[in-house]
Amino acid sequence: MEDFILHRRSIRRFQDKAVEVEKMNQLYEAARWAPSWGNQQCCELVVIEDPEMRGKLAALLSAKNPATKSFEQAPVIIAVCGMPKKSGYYKDQQVTRYENWFLYDLGIVSQNICLKAVELGLGTVIVGSFDHDKAEKLLSVPDGCELVSFIVLGYPDHAPSPPKRKTVPEFVHFGKYSTQ
Amino acid sequence: MEDFILHRRSIRRFQDKAVEVEKMNQLYEAARWAPSWGNQQCCELVVIEDPEMRGKLAALLSAKNPATKSFEQAPVIIAVCGMPKKSGYYKDQQVTRYENWFLYDLGIVSQNICLKAVELGLGTVIVGSFDHDKAEKLLSVPDGCELVSFIVLGYPDHAPSPPKRKTVPEFVHFGKYSTQ
Repeated sequence: MEDFILHRRSIRRFQDKAVEVEKMNQLYEAARWAPSWGNQQCCELVVIEDPEMRGKLAALLSAKNPATKSFEQAPVIIAVCGMPKKSGYYKDQQVTRYENWFLYDLGIVSQNICLKAVELGLGTVIVGSFDHDKAEKLLSVPDGCELVSFIVLGYPDHAPSPPKRKTVPEFVHFGKYSTQ
Repeated sequence: MEDFILHRRSIRRFQDKAVEVEKMNQLYEAARWAPSWGNQQCCELVVIEDPEMRGKLAALLSAKNPATKSFEQAPVIIAVCGMPKKSGYYKDQQVTRYENWFLYDLGIVSQNICLKAVELGLGTVIVGSFDHDKAEKLLSVPDGCELVSFIVLGYPDHAPSPPKRKTVPEFVHFGKYSTQ
């Protein structure tokens, strides 16, 4: 069996080929089964296929972002949104150190989507550096909800080699954190 | 093939059975291949097996936390830590709206671990509500790094039915966010 976790790469060049509705449905289903804080399911997804809108969103990325071109090339952009006050809270009280725990929940949802995409022969890249306020206006994201990241999605047009990773001993500690 | 994404459940009761080193290594490898902001790999993991330490950490959870007992029962706790200033930054400048983007990266790492655990016949639950400061002291987490969550890990002793999920139309929007 292919190991989707090990074989996922960030893809920034895409074929000119639409993603089938059946595959999109499987991606939504993968997102749906992500665990979330207190099962609050704070995540909301906006699926963008319209080329004009993709172009407008691309213009909100920094010019140097290596994913900018992919916004116009890939057939689908998924805007990953979430409701901050639903995650990390219990009865309207923040009960963890991090006010923005919803970022953790949305990371989980995003990875479910990206791994399922690998299984379906699709490629993705996650984008988090853009003008969030303007993107929220373009996509009519309402008060109480925030647009956090984009997942660019389509059929890959390259097979990049993996960027260098730390070795396991460089980030795994036993018993206590070791700074040696 | 089993769909690990759909079959992952949060597990809070565990068998009295150690997790094999070979399986632990596969979990670290899964964590290792998580994508991260600018490939900064901000994540650091502390693996705790000592029963006394597990008991001390359990005492830092709120009494009502349904995972408290599992800290003493499960053979392994993984403390998911990260370096905030490595994620969401470019040349020491914050380049996204969210100062704590590292939470998103750590959510991705956590889900890689939890999905690989399903593949290996293991169960997990993620815990994010506890006294973070005290837990960091116990585990000697250094300045510049923060302990965000725990993943409780072991062989499941129950097969819980899934909590209710939103339907796809309840959280997926097309073109723009629809509040209908």
